[in-house]
Amino acid sequence: MSSPSGAGKTTLSRKLIEADNNIAMSISVTTRKPRPGEVDGKDYYFISIEKFESMIAAKELLEWANVFGNLYGTPRKPVEDALARGRDVLFDIDWQGTQQLAQAMEDDLVRLFILPPNADALRTRLIGRNQDASNVIAKRMAEAGREISHWPEYDYVVVNENVDEAHKEVVAILMAERLKRRRQLGLTDFVRGLMTGL
Amino acid sequence: MSSPSGAGKTTLSRKLIEADNNIAMSISVTTRKPRPGEVDGKDYYFISIEKFESMIAAKELLEWANVFGNLYGTPRKPVEDALARGRDVLFDIDWQGTQQLAQAMEDDLVRLFILPPNADALRTRLIGRNQDASNVIAKRMAEAGREISHWPEYDYVVVNENVDEAHKEVVAILMAERLKRRRQLGLTDFVRGLMTGL
Repeated sequence: MSSPSGAGKTTLSRKLIEADNNIAMSISVTTRKPRPGEVDGKDYYFISIEKFESMIAAKELLEWANVFGNLYGTPRKPVEDALARGRDVLFDIDWQGTQQLAQAMEDDLVRLFILPPNADALRTRLIGRNQDASNVIAKRMAEAGREISHWPEYDYVVVNENVDEAHKEVVAILMAERLKRRRQLGLTDFVRGLMTGL
Repeated sequence: MSSPSGAGKTTLSRKLIEADNNIAMSISVTTRKPRPGEVDGKDYYFISIEKFESMIAAKELLEWANVFGNLYGTPRKPVEDALARGRDVLFDIDWQGTQQLAQAMEDDLVRLFILPPNADALRTRLIGRNQDASNVIAKRMAEAGREISHWPEYDYVVVNENVDEAHKEVVAILMAERLKRRRQLGLTDFVRGLMTGL
């Protein structure tokens, strides 16, 4: 799931994780310092540059990117463990991470982009969130524009005008993806049993 | 939507049409005689062989098939009219019709197969539906097996163990398909407007 900052992605991620026991959040590693209120092991794993570089070298990251001088990455092992147990994994990542994940996971990745209903809503949410100076807001709006420009690379697009409606749409996408024939790994055996009984 | 007879496809189709104002049922033409209770223009358009053949010749059918001596087909015009108005169309057809529709409509077709939860449930529903002789039931079970054997040609599979749960799944598939980026034809203009306001 990707979106510009301020489009409601964090809220939608949290609601999805709360509503569905079979999907777990992927927790990224980062070299940036924690912001006030951020918890290590919940929001991110905050690690050193040396540790990050050793994870790259050991191919322990599914994807990673340098965003304005800070490194962000997705640890491979928790994802592979969850998938092996038949669970799904939610990635809260930007367009760079999505491109790399799409290469690593191919058809197994479902790419969902969240859009704000309009520019004013985005601006209001960005201003409401932090009392940044107006030049910081302007920079964040420019960043939002760059992220939004990648929407054509996604499978699904949800416009978050109303968070409950957007949540329903995200839940429907997850349910439908699980109902795809190629994702229902037990179907071949199921149909074999069914045919035997006819 | 395809399924063996007795898997609940008719019930699920009806519930979907009732629940969603933006999807219309495609009504097939057929050369077979109406069964008791069947209404012309609702269950099928009952037409003569001559009329059917003239529709084939005029390319007025999106797909057609000969099933045990009776001809069945999907008229093209109501489908094209509905799609042009931005509505979706539900097809209640078998694997032969689905294969032909997939060629005619390509990516625009979503293929959904409904499976019964087990062979006994299918047998019970077939016996419950009509007081046919046991050799008729056996023939219908064999037909069901032939239809089921085509399940790998479908995009989605729903196992109809509980009709309300299966209905929820069908609704989710429809909602998710509508949220696919490539189906949201107004998105390019919407994002252009959004970017202008940043």
